[in-house]
Amino acid sequence: MSKKIAVVMTDMFEDSEYTDPAEAFKKEGHELTVIEKEKGKQVEGKNKETSVTTDASIDDVDPADFDALFIPGGFSPDMLRADERFVSFSKHFIDEDKPVFAICHGPQLLITAKALEGRKATGFISIQVDMEYAKADVKDEEVVVCHNLVTSRTPDDLPAFNRESLKQLQ
Amino acid sequence: MSKKIAVVMTDMFEDSEYTDPAEAFKKEGHELTVIEKEKGKQVEGKNKETSVTTDASIDDVDPADFDALFIPGGFSPDMLRADERFVSFSKHFIDEDKPVFAICHGPQLLITAKALEGRKATGFISIQVDMEYAKADVKDEEVVVCHNLVTSRTPDDLPAFNRESLKQLQ
Repeated sequence: MSKKIAVVMTDMFEDSEYTDPAEAFKKEGHELTVIEKEKGKQVEGKNKETSVTTDASIDDVDPADFDALFIPGGFSPDMLRADERFVSFSKHFIDEDKPVFAICHGPQLLITAKALEGRKATGFISIQVDMEYAKADVKDEEVVVCHNLVTSRTPDDLPAFNRESLKQLQ
Repeated sequence: MSKKIAVVMTDMFEDSEYTDPAEAFKKEGHELTVIEKEKGKQVEGKNKETSVTTDASIDDVDPADFDALFIPGGFSPDMLRADERFVSFSKHFIDEDKPVFAICHGPQLLITAKALEGRKATGFISIQVDMEYAKADVKDEEVVVCHNLVTSRTPDDLPAFNRESLKQLQ
């Protein structure tokens, strides 16, 4: 069955960490909504390989309308978490036990939402100490699944990240 | 008296958070050494306003040869802390009670070095929750001085950051 996936993303996202899972999700019939501060904005990947037009403004979406959350990495998550609207939007999915897929720097948004406490997770090496301090049980593995939270470290982990994320959408 | 200041910095530093304090330090006769993975590399500011040639490779420097550490912000500190050499280099200055000046995302390097525990500090809004989890006593102020650790939040805080950093070098 098709699921509605909210993607929170702005400039400087890690290109393949959006494009690769997005392709895998769409291939299985799931619907993605890219959410930024502004609707209809072109956001650019960190490696300048990808430009994505945002589908909705954070002001116009209700997290209750989505089945899952996807947070691509790069420097995008750190910019988003400076804005309380993205923090509370993301927190909804953890609080409501909905699937959350976060790769690379994606878990930064979950740290700020204080949503990693007591959860097994992984992330890019630079944020692993932050995650430990945020009371996550950090594993240095290609993918870590903790109930409905799926996390990975880098673009190299994408096959495992996509596989485990898709399982949560079945 | 002229002091030797180690600057740890790579691409994507916040331009003015390097140029503005660097100018203030040099004006007072202090000597800056920009340290990156490679010596003689051109590192580019995030806003593409500044290009700086690095003075030394992290492999060729001994922190014991410097009087103080300066960590400009931007995305540079997050990239540096993925490399253990920069983490241990930075930790030396905290352990040895030497002056440390960190602005914006600069404290990220100190979190990874586990060097903020029990210290009053500030940083860019996006990393303030990380800093709290890292057991810092976080203040939302233009400059926070805790013994010889000087921290600020954004380029707007530069006058206060420069003033308090210079005091530590007297």
